[in-house]
Amino acid sequence: MASVRIREAKEGDCGDILRLIRELAEYEKLSDQVKITEEGPFVVGYGLYYYIYSTWKGRNVYLEDIYVMPEYRGQGIGTKIIKKVAEVALDKGCSQFRLAVLNWNKKAMDLYKALGAQDLTEAEGWHSFRFEGEAMRELAGR
Amino acid sequence: MASVRIREAKEGDCGDILRLIRELAEYEKLSDQVKITEEGPFVVGYGLYYYIYSTWKGRNVYLEDIYVMPEYRGQGIGTKIIKKVAEVALDKGCSQFRLAVLNWNKKAMDLYKALGAQDLTEAEGWHSFRFEGEAMRELAGR
Repeated sequence: MASVRIREAKEGDCGDILRLIRELAEYEKLSDQVKITEEGPFVVGYGLYYYIYSTWKGRNVYLEDIYVMPEYRGQGIGTKIIKKVAEVALDKGCSQFRLAVLNWNKKAMDLYKALGAQDLTEAEGWHSFRFEGEAMRELAGR
Repeated sequence: MASVRIREAKEGDCGDILRLIRELAEYEKLSDQVKITEEGPFVVGYGLYYYIYSTWKGRNVYLEDIYVMPEYRGQGIGTKIIKKVAEVALDKGCSQFRLAVLNWNKKAMDLYKALGAQDLTEAEGWHSFRFEGEAMRELAGR
């Protein structure tokens, strides 16, 4: 088993990360939503996160994507990425760490629960809604 | 019926907005999650949004909260707030406009759908997960 190091991304990782983004989209059955073509051979997983500043819910970190290449799974790399994001989030003073998962991805849901996450859709009934281009333009009367 | 103007918030609106945040939390049955005490008499509704920059999903706007005081409902103020956010989002080059809603709030869900939003939890199965303080500290080994 190759040794795996969890670190923050560098500019030179872009090609690799784009390749993984495409792999993740295939896994999520959302490939039609990805329009990138670059390739790269070295990075085996990634977590893409950002910070959210909200007046009353405090500063949050949101993990947009997390992905590990199939041949590198089962080594706890996903857990290590989540732990790394939790460290960064605490360092930045975040009070929450959120992420979204597809309900057919039971393995991921079970992992997040095992790591202490709460399923807000199940527990409180939260649904995610999205307006896209055409709907946005209609709303704005453009 | 009083005339209602939809505008961006100013610093002096903070007290009013905090009052509305508390009202919204009561409506969402999440009052225990709000710890504010300020009061104010003039603002009758608000939408709290932020921008999200994501590498491959483009620039998004996320509507964190939307609230209109009960006595001002039925005048289309919620719709006007959503339209205003869509305008701002388009001006900022956003490709998506997201929000979350509790599944027992059928009136809101129906409104968002009528305005052209897609329920991603229903359509694609997305669930929201959250790690809070203690779980984050455990993850980070602190």
